This record gives sequence, structure tokens and C-alpha cells, in this order.
Amino acid sequence: MKHIDDPLIAPGRVRLRELGISIGNFSPGKWNAITDVPGIKIGHTTLITDDKEGLPVRTGVTAILPNDNIYMNRLNAGAFVLNGAGEMSGLIQVQEWGILETPILLSNTYSVGVCSSALVKDLTKRHPGIGEKYDVVIPVVGECDDSWLNDIRGMHVRSEHVYHALAKAQSGPVAEGSVGGGTGMITCDFKAGIGTSSRLLDGKLQAYTLGVLVMSNFGIREELRIDGVPVGKMLFNKFSHLQRRTNSYGSIIAVLATNAPLTAHQLNRVSKRVALGIGRVGSHAAHGSGEIVIAFSTANKIPRSSDAPIFAMNAVLDSAVNPIYQAAIEATEEAIINSLCASSDMKGRGNKLCPALPLDDIKKIFSERSSLGE
Amino acid sequence: MKHIDDPLIAPGRVRLRELGISIGNFSPGKWNAITDVPGIKIGHTTLITDDKEGLPVRTGVTAILPNDNIYMNRLNAGAFVLNGAGEMSGLIQVQEWGILETPILLSNTYSVGVCSSALVKDLTKRHPGIGEKYDVVIPVVGECDDSWLNDIRGMHVRSEHVYHALAKAQSGPVAEGSVGGGTGMITCDFKAGIGTSSRLLDGKLQAYTLGVLVMSNFGIREELRIDGVPVGKMLFNKFSHLQRRTNSYGSIIAVLATNAPLTAHQLNRVSKRVALGIGRVGSHAAHGSGEIVIAFSTANKIPRSSDAPIFAMNAVLDSAVNPIYQAAIEATEEAIINSLCASSDMKGRGNKLCPALPLDDIKKIFSERSSLGE
Amino acid sequence: MKHIDDPLIAPGRVRLRELGISIGNFSPGKWNAITDVPGIKIGHTTLITDDKEGLPVRTGVTAILPNDNIYMNRLNAGAFVLNGAGEMSGLIQVQEWGILETPILLSNTYSVGVCSSALVKDLTKRHPGIGEKYDVVIPVVGECDDSWLNDIRGMHVRSEHVYHALAKAQSGPVAEGSVGGGTGMITCDFKAGIGTSSRLLDGKLQAYTLGVLVMSNFGIREELRIDGVPVGKMLFNKFSHLQRRTNSYGSIIAVLATNAPLTAHQLNRVSKRVALGIGRVGSHAAHGSGEIVIAFSTANKIPRSSDAPIFAMNAVLDSAVNPIYQAAIEATEEAIINSLCASSDMKGRGNKLCPALPLDDIKKIFSERSSLGE
Amino acid sequence: MKHIDDPLIAPGRVRLRELGISIGNFSPGKWNAITDVPGIKIGHTTLITDDKEGLPVRTGVTAILPNDNIYMNRLNAGAFVLNGAGEMSGLIQVQEWGILETPILLSNTYSVGVCSSALVKDLTKRHPGIGEKYDVVIPVVGECDDSWLNDIRGMHVRSEHVYHALAKAQSGPVAEGSVGGGTGMITCDFKAGIGTSSRLLDGKLQAYTLGVLVMSNFGIREELRIDGVPVGKMLFNKFSHLQRRTNSYGSIIAVLATNAPLTAHQLNRVSKRVALGIGRVGSHAAHGSGEIVIAFSTANKIPRSSDAPIFAMNAVLDSAVNPIYQAAIEATEEAIINSLCASSDMKGRGNKLCPALPLDDIKKIFSERSSLGE
Repeated sequence: MKHIDDPLIAPGRVRLRELGISIGNFSPGKWNAITDVPGIKIGHTTLITDDKEGLPVRTGVTAILPNDNIYMNRLNAGAFVLNGAGEMSGLIQVQEWGILETPILLSNTYSVGVCSSALVKDLTKRHPGIGEKYDVVIPVVGECDDSWLNDIRGMHVRSEHVYHALAKAQSGPVAEGSVGGGTGMITCDFKAGIGTSSRLLDGKLQAYTLGVLVMSNFGIREELRIDGVPVGKMLFNKFSHLQRRTNSYGSIIAVLATNAPLTAHQLNRVSKRVALGIGRVGSHAAHGSGEIVIAFSTANKIPRSSDAPIFAMNAVLDSAVNPIYQAAIEATEEAIINSLCASSDMKGRGNKLCPALPLDDIKKIFSERSSLGE
Repeated sequence: MKHIDDPLIAPGRVRLRELGISIGNFSPGKWNAITDVPGIKIGHTTLITDDKEGLPVRTGVTAILPNDNIYMNRLNAGAFVLNGAGEMSGLIQVQEWGILETPILLSNTYSVGVCSSALVKDLTKRHPGIGEKYDVVIPVVGECDDSWLNDIRGMHVRSEHVYHALAKAQSGPVAEGSVGGGTGMITCDFKAGIGTSSRLLDGKLQAYTLGVLVMSNFGIREELRIDGVPVGKMLFNKFSHLQRRTNSYGSIIAVLATNAPLTAHQLNRVSKRVALGIGRVGSHAAHGSGEIVIAFSTANKIPRSSDAPIFAMNAVLDSAVNPIYQAAIEATEEAIINSLCASSDMKGRGNKLCPALPLDDIKKIFSERSSLGE
Repeated sequence: MKHIDDPLIAPGRVRLRELGISIGNFSPGKWNAITDVPGIKIGHTTLITDDKEGLPVRTGVTAILPNDNIYMNRLNAGAFVLNGAGEMSGLIQVQEWGILETPILLSNTYSVGVCSSALVKDLTKRHPGIGEKYDVVIPVVGECDDSWLNDIRGMHVRSEHVYHALAKAQSGPVAEGSVGGGTGMITCDFKAGIGTSSRLLDGKLQAYTLGVLVMSNFGIREELRIDGVPVGKMLFNKFSHLQRRTNSYGSIIAVLATNAPLTAHQLNRVSKRVALGIGRVGSHAAHGSGEIVIAFSTANKIPRSSDAPIFAMNAVLDSAVNPIYQAAIEATEEAIINSLCASSDMKGRGNKLCPALPLDDIKKIFSERSSLGE
Repeated sequence: MKHIDDPLIAPGRVRLRELGISIGNFSPGKWNAITDVPGIKIGHTTLITDDKEGLPVRTGVTAILPNDNIYMNRLNAGAFVLNGAGEMSGLIQVQEWGILETPILLSNTYSVGVCSSALVKDLTKRHPGIGEKYDVVIPVVGECDDSWLNDIRGMHVRSEHVYHALAKAQSGPVAEGSVGGGTGMITCDFKAGIGTSSRLLDGKLQAYTLGVLVMSNFGIREELRIDGVPVGKMLFNKFSHLQRRTNSYGSIIAVLATNAPLTAHQLNRVSKRVALGIGRVGSHAAHGSGEIVIAFSTANKIPRSSDAPIFAMNAVLDSAVNPIYQAAIEATEEAIINSLCASSDMKGRGNKLCPALPLDDIKKIFSERSSLGE
């Protein structure tokens, strides 16, 4: 079991910006991570081992804590399903209420059940009022399919792994790549998993930050683009000898957070822009892909109950919202690419190898292009 | 041309409550009308005549003004399409922005175009900034099909009729029945058209009022229910000699307004409850029916532009919203029934007769039931 | 543990039609149950006991098998969320694809996880191609909150209870009331749970049948209506001495099945009519209620894979669909009322008593009304 | 008034492929136009003149005829609203029914009304059964805002312009650029308007073709990308002396057609991929932009009425749909770029100049990149 105090990134790997490549116009925050939005904590449980029967365990759990007591300090939230061949348990309620009231867990497809049960146990233990003074709670759990590398049928994620991810959640830098829920995941036939990026808004919105964290597991090699450059095609022959996924095209779960005071309605709209960012990296939102976006704002706490039926909240004026859209697209693209940059080669089920994105090639491609004035 | 200073109701007709029948638990406001929500004005242009060729004109325009300057003082808005075999031009933008910025016009199906054009002319004249300092404007126009009585192909609604409805809009009591956009309309094979009702919220929400105005044109006789009582079935034989609509099942446009500070997201949700109210009156939301709900809150004015990108607004706490749902259902049911109560028999196209709802029978049915303790 | 071979209905209870009361115009099928749609099987695991600590277990699992091999013989499906304060895990994929490929499980809120995990295990065992030749599978699991009577925190549903419900699923009559997932559930403050009803279509559609099964757990007493009659209000004083649910308004999951060849798009639309049926029984779709409808057609089997990329299917002509809408509303109302009719008094958590619907009173109310010509 | 028999493209301009640049992997059809889908006809009315007061008229109407009698031979249709700050009158019904039954008109924002009215007149004249044997008809009319160049307040589009576009509609090559509804439109601050492209599917789907036609009017210069290359940024300084749109970010209407037998549900899904294509060209779907996609399949004719309530249709197997998604993205990107390639400089309101996309620069940029192996 690998913990968040492990290296933040695989040995020998660097994040996209360390290659001298950046995406878009806005500056990233201090950590270039979703944790640049104050209050957000991320925790991973990473399972990389072989089980008793020698089957490869390449999976885990990632926990996103929107604040220190999300059940009592609920937040406005929204979502967009670009292609719904995936699952985010609890999303129906988030969309109905426009409110997030649990941490968000990310794991593999067959671990949605155990994550859901474990989060119920955790929350009901923390909050005795659940199911008594308050309604029962419905946890938010997103998934992607890591079965190409991971023995997903073994259902190796257990409750304790959920508790660990929740307990280890912290602010500051975020471990990326083959960690947490993204441990066994693949993007455009390169090893990927968890990635994150953030943007500092500017001008009138300069008080605000926006961050995206993805569990990225979609696409085919020839469609991969970095900042528009079709690197997947350019690198295609180099990897044509390797086996790759066929029956499935994976998925991506994207989580956007911001401290800008967006309403639920606005967060639904921002979520669509995250989808545009996914599309720019090369997704055609394949039939079998679960491309699901959830977004929340930490600005307005929605009281769980109150004597007063009315509460005051702030909102971004509709006509001021465009920079947030632009930043959301940028951060999404960079978060996905960071998930690739952070991951090393991984061997998994059936001894199959998923190669890392070759960073030297990427660097070379971009230095040539920059000489052309891009 | 009949004006709003004409009788508020057809001679010999009374509203539902004057029959001693009321629906639900909340009290209505002073006028039992959408105009009980402060600031709302309603205007009608009613066209009941024969044209030069002797064809029956039974149509008109109804204008709903959410406040005195809706273009500059925009309001949160939402919608729900129960069955979309109808048109509300401009609804896409209302749903996208969660904002209403024009009056709402109601007319017949083939007059959406002229109403839309006329409202553009009216608004661009009032607001020179439109299309210059501000974006172009997209008007909200809803329709139902009045072709069973009205010579709809004659397209008798003209721009001047739109301007007249806008100019005559006023607060206070609202003319109902065969007036405005509802002039030629039919509900459950009885003459109907415009109807309205309101509810005063109570308890913690007692500062707030909610009103519904419908242009009601749906359903078949045997499905009509008043407060659950299947009056349509009970009266069926009495009217079985009369011709009735066959190929179409009409539509209903419902407009809900409240001064409770509901967000766009909440107004979408309230709109679904209006649909439940429509269902209780007997609608099965027929394939050919356009059952479209739009809702807005007068509480928060959304600045058209501002130096500050953030504005403060109030919202109803999610857990306090149920009385609003209940009141929305009640008011919708009563608004529809009021559209029937207010309308007299009407003859129209092909000399067909659409009968009024027989109020004496209704009164008798309910007095019997009340003796049973309902 | 109570099995489906137990009595179909609690001792001394009868279904609505046995009271001489029927809803709507269409005739029910042989069993007046969702199983009148050929091929559908229903299985329950019912848990009524006290646990080791003396806490009351009043819960269970209901399994709906759309056909004998739903994973390989996938079906068109649709859904509608009237109010989404609930969970149906897997619904995102059903809505995206318009396809149902797993059984549907119904249980309590905190058992979604275990049901999901158990169904994954069951399906991957039956179909070795899952996750290999085919994508991983995402199960469909719906829930309501039974915590007023049941020790929901005890999470008493285990995998074996899921397997049992699946194994016991059978065609023919369906056990109703306090069985399966509905064991501890309550509707309008009376004991309810599972209910079902069916309708035989007629005229041109006479080859087809439609059935609805509900796990009904919504509402407050004063809103209950049977065929429009406000029985909840009329019976209110009789039960005013009893404690009832306060902080929650429960939920309802409704499953509609038909052998009419409806497309996914049409099944979405039919699902909205099921919501209208829920509304007619008295639901205002409370903020805290999860009123979720799923619908499927057994007519067209969608090949899991095929050499040919095109397949032929049948569809109901859009203009012929209204009887299906009407029947869906009727069957939904009757299914909900059947869930009440079939249930006896139940004591549960904190020794609270949930009373059965008093059938003698209902019978009396309706016989009086029928004397008035309803 | 310029007609379709005018040059297909502005003098001195060429389509993207004539620059040696192509987008994506699939081959285009014979005309690289939506008309490669058999049966589709396109007609334009182009208005480029000054009105009596010397105000610049730069607008028009484009008509898309899905087949020769769309009212009787209705087609499956779907839609997706990426950002709804725009209008497509009639879309509510298309989305509800999943059926298209009128031609599609494209014009400027303030001409939706006149286009709607004129299309009603045209259709009711052609089909006396409308409003008698059949329901009334609701036309589909999409719009973008051309007010930067065009005197939109003048409302210069008249009924006769609609009739002309309908009458002139033909198969074969399609005039692009500053024609029809796109006459006064702008994309990423370059002159644009109407553009189109098509793709021949291959493999098992090789019998099928897909085409996209856009009325493109969105974006800001610095966001423009062609096949991922940020040409907008690279060309930014060259045009920084020119005035450009500020208060508005325009819109785009995209129409996708295919003869692959897609269901309504599938056409909704394909429409989302058109949105991804829009995003790849640089749209962030700005708050004020109406980015609306409508899609239809010519394969299955849906009978308007029939003695049999069931009809047989074909559908693409869900697992075979990915190439259609990929082709939809490609064709959308190329259609947008073609709208830019086909347009010359245009002067309009206030003597403002909107520059053409500098094709020589584009050619040079791409030839440099191709030397790098892209």
C-alpha cells in the first residue's frame, strides 16, 4: 500500500510545466492543483501488489474533501454528463439539490459498492444526527474501469482503504499518476490516472481560484493531443508493437472546485466547459466511456437547517463568468496531461505493459513548435 | 376587440371559490391571481369577431410583465417541459441563463412569429442599448393551438395586438376565460382559456406569495377532475351529442411567479410541481400536447451589468421549500379550473360549439361530496 | 427471513380490486402485476427480525429480472427523475445508452453499496466475458429510506440476501406490501412497501401489456388520495395520536415494464407519466424525496455484439402512444395503493408503530361515493 | 439579392482542403457538404445592400430541406444545447418527439419571427391537412446575432426571402461564407457565416455518410484553432489594429445530417460530439453564445399516420457508433473552418471592417508544421 507521503510523482517523471509546456493563458496556483482552492483536501490509498493467487492488484481510492465538514457545511454543486457509460453514485441527488454534502470518492468500477458502504459508515459515525435529526445520507462515488491492468474482479478495495484515503486527505501538493483511484488507469493508451491543475482568475475575479482533479482513463493513442498538437498520432508508430485496450475506451471523472461564488445552475454550466477540455485532449466521448464532471463552489455554505428559511449568498454576475469557463477548459486539459506526465510504465493483468508517455519526445515536439511561433 | 376593462369574467359565470369550492390548504391572495405577487401586471388583447371572409376570429394575446422594467431588472427563472409538443420561443435562453429578461407573451401557435417580432420591436424601442451596449434580445412567447374554434390559418394576430396587450397590462384583478391568448382555447372539451390563482405561504415563509397563470387548452372531457372528483366522467353523457376535438389534445402554458427568493435551480424544481398540478386536473400529457411551465421569482434583481462581478442574493433554504411545492400544485389546479369557470359557451370554426363547464352541476356534485365529509 | 413462497399479502389484507375499487379504464392482466408482461420475474428477500442487539431489522431486497438473460439480451430503457433526493446507482448509464443490461435491485438507502457489489459478483460469475470480451458491468440499484422502522445503520442486507432475491425471482403473482426492499417502508404515514399493477392495452395496441412495480415510501397522511378521493384527510383524525415521520418524506422507486416496442426515447416519455401517477396519489415530490422512475420494453432485444452494425427494431408510432400514457398513470396509482392495501401494521425502531391503511374505512368511503355516480 | 447560382465561394477564396489542409481521418463525400447525404437540399437568400436610409443590410436566410416532403416523411432527430444563449424556435418539439417534421431555417436573431410565420404559411399552403386532419405545425428556426455588421434592427428579412430560400434549395455543392443566414456573421473575429463538410463512414458503416452545416458566428480571435494549431494567437498581432466585437460573443447553429439509421436517442448523443467539434475550434461556449446543435437521420421515415400502430425501423447497434462520433467531430471542425475560408472581408454597420481569414498565412503555418511530421 502506497501512501500520500510517498513521492508525489513517479521517479524520473515531471509535470507538464516542468517540461516547459503550459496550456492556456491563466496562471496556475501555488500547487497547480485542486488544493489551491482553499480548504480542499485530497487523500489516496494506492494498492499495487499481487494478491494471494498472484493476480495483479493495481487500484485504489482517492478521496476529495471539499471542506472539513462537508456534511454540515454543504456547498453548491453541479454536474454534466458528457457520456454516461459510467457511474457516479449519488449524482442524482447532487443534481437535484444543487448541493454537495459528502466527500467525493473515486475508485474502480466494481468498488463503487464498497466505497459507498464505507462512506456511509464513516459519515454516520461522525454525524449521529444522520438518519435521526437529518435525512439519511447518499455518498458520491465515481468510477472508471481499470480492468486492463488491475484484477478488477478480485474487488480488492476494502472499507479500510476508503477510511485510509479519507484520513490521509490533506491540503498542499497532490500525488498524481498511478495513485489512488487512478492507480491502474490509462489515457489514450498511455499510463495515466490522477492528475490535477489549477488556475488563478484575474481582473475583477482575481480573488478567485479554480482547480480540476481528474481520474483519467479514456481514449485511444491516435487521438491524444497536447495543447492541440496531435502527439498521439506523431508517436503512434513508436508504440504500435504494444498490445492495447480494445473492447473498452475507458472513462474520465473530472472534479472541478472553485472559491468563486457560483450557484448550482452556474456550476452545471461550468461543468460543460470541463467537457470541452476533455474533448480538446482527444476524447470523442466514446460510446463505452463514462465522461462525468462534477463541480462545486466552496464560497457559500448552505446551512443544513436554520430557523430562518432564507439565507444570503453571493453569486458571480452572469456576464462576468466567461473567464471561469476559459480557465476551466485550460485546467482540465492540463490536469489530464499531468496524469500522463506523472505516470511510469506499468505492468498488470496478463503481464501486459502500459507505457508511460515519453516525455523526451513530448519536449522535443514542443520545442520545435515553439520555434515556429506558437 | 375586447379589452381588459371589459368584464373580468363572462356574464353569468363565477370563479371556483364563488361556487364554494376551493382547492388545497393555503389561502389565496387578495385577487386570487398571479398579480398578488407584487409588481406583476397582466394585459390581454382579445379578438372575437369574424374576418372579411366571414371566418371566425377567436384568438388574442396575453402579456405577463414580471416587473416594470424586466429588461434592466432581470429575474431568476426556471422551466419544466412536461410534454414538449408545443413552443415557447426564447425558453432555451431562459433555461440556459436561469434568467428572464423579457415580458412573456401567450398566443396561438401560428402567432409566435408575429409576437416575437413585435416584442423585439417594442423592447429595442424602449432600450436603445439593446444590440449596442448589450446583446440582442430574445423574447419569450408561448403558444397553444386554438384552431378548433379560431381561424388560425388567417394569422389574425398583428403587431398592434401585441403592443395593446403590453400597454394595457395592469396589476389587480385579472380577466379570465375567453380572453387574450386563451380566447379560443378549450380544456377537457369545455371552453377555457386564461385562468389564474394564488397562494399565500404561511409559517416561516409567510412573507411570500405565489401565483400561477395558465393558458389552458389540454385534455379530453372524461379525464377532467376538480380536486380529485372525476367530474368529466360524471358529466360525460350530458355532452356526448356535441362534436369535440379529435386529432389534437391541445396544450397548456403555465406561468408561475413568486416573491420568495428562489434561485434558477429552485425554479426549475418548482416548475415540475406545476406539472403535477396539471396532471391532477386530468392531463396525461398527451403526445400532441405542449405542456410547458415557466417560473420566475421577483425577489432578486440580477444587474444587467455592474462594475462588481459578484452580487448578493437571497435564497430559500432547500429544506424549507416544501410549502412552495404544495402551494404551486394547488394554485395550478385552481388556475386551470378558473379558466373553465370563467368561460361561456363559444361558437367558432365550422359553427362548432364548445360548451361552458356547467357550473350548477359542479356545485351540486361538490355539495353532495361535502356531505360525505371530504 | 421471509420468502416469496410466503403469503403474497399480509393476513387479513386484500388488494384494492378485492375491495371493489379499481382505478382507471384499462383492464389489468391476469395477475394485475408487472409479471403480466411476459418474461418478467420478481424475487424478494424479506428481513423481519431483531438483530443481536435487539435492534429491529425491517428491510430486504427486491430483484426485478426483465428477462432470463438481460446481460446478453439487452432492452431499451428510459427514466425520469421527478425529484432526485434518492439514488438509483447505474441510472446514468441506462439514461445514456437507453439500454438496460442488468437486473434491477431495490433496497434501503444504505444497502445500495452491498447490492451493487453483490450484483457485480453475480453477473461476472454468470458471464465470464464481462470485463474481457465485453466492458465491465454497472448494476442498477434503487433505494428508499426505511430508517423510521428499520435499523438502517445496522446495514443488515448482505450479499446472500441479494443472491436469494435473484434466485427466487419468478413469474406469476407477486408478493406485495412489507416484503423485499419495501419491508420497512411507509407511504403517506401508512405501512406500505412493494406494490404492483398492470394494464392490458386495447384497440390497435391490444397485443400489449404494461405493468408497474413500486417500492413506495413517500408522502404525508393528509395528502393521500385514492382515485382522487382525499382519503388521507378524511382518515387524518383517526390516526392523529400516532407518531409519524417528520424529518424525511421518503421516496418512491417505480419500475415500468411493457412488451410494447417502445424506444429509449419513448420510454423516457412514458416515465414522466408514471410521475404524474405518483402525483395523483398525493405526492408533491418533496424536497427530500427520491421519486425516480425507470422503464423498459421487452420487445426489442439489442444484440450485445454483432457482425452487422445495423439491427431492425419495432417502434410504436408516436401518434399511437397516448393509451400507453394513460395506462401508465392508472397502473402507477393502483400499484402504490396496492402497496398500502397489502401491508399490515408494523412496529419498528423505538417501538414506533406504523399503521396499516384501514381497508374497511376505504371500502365505506368508496361505496358512498359510488352511490353518487362516480 | 444574391442567389445560390452565384459563385459558391467569394472570389479569390478557397475551401480548406484546397489549401492542402484536411481535418481528421475520414474522407469527405463528393461535395464535402451536407448535401452528400442523399436527399438533402440547401437554399440561401443573401441580402447584401444598403437600405433606404443607407443602413447596411448584411443578412439573409438559409433553408435546409431534409427531404422532399419532410412534413409527411418525418425523420428521427435529436439535439444538444452546448450553451443556450440563442434561439432555435421549434426545438422543444423536436426534442420531445425525437422527430423533425419541417425544414430548418437559419437567419438572424430578430428574424426568427418572420421566418417562423413564413414557414407556417408555406407549409399550410402545401399541406391542407395541417390543422385539420393533422395537428398544427411548429417550424424550426435557428438564429445568430449579426448585428455587428448588419442593421439587425431594420428587420430586413421578409417572408419572400424565406420563400426564395426554400424554392432555391438544391442538392449538390453548397454556397458557403457570407451567404444566406450567415451573410453578416463572424467567427473568432474573422468573417465567416455558412460552412459545410461531410464524411464517408468506412468499415461496416461504409454505406453511410454524415454531413454538417454550420451558421458560425462565435468566438474571439485568440481562441481560433485549426486542427489544433492556435492560428488565432499566431495571427493576433496582424489584426490588432482592427475594431472587433466586444459585448457579444456570437453563436453557432450546427445541423448534422446522416443516412445512417440513428434513433432520436442516438441523435441526441451525436449532437454532443458536434459540440466537442465546436470546442476544438476554440469555443469556450461563452455565456452570451447560443451554441445549438440539431441532428437528423434520413434513414427511417416515420409515418405521419398509419392504420398500424407499430412500424419497423433500423438502428445502428450501440457498440458500432463510435466512428459516427469521430466523423461528427471532424466534419464540424471542417465546416466551421470552411465558413471562414469561403468569406471575404466585409464592411458593415458603422463602416466597421471584419477581415477575412488570411489564407496565405494559414497555408504557410500548416506547411511548416507538416515538415515537423504532424
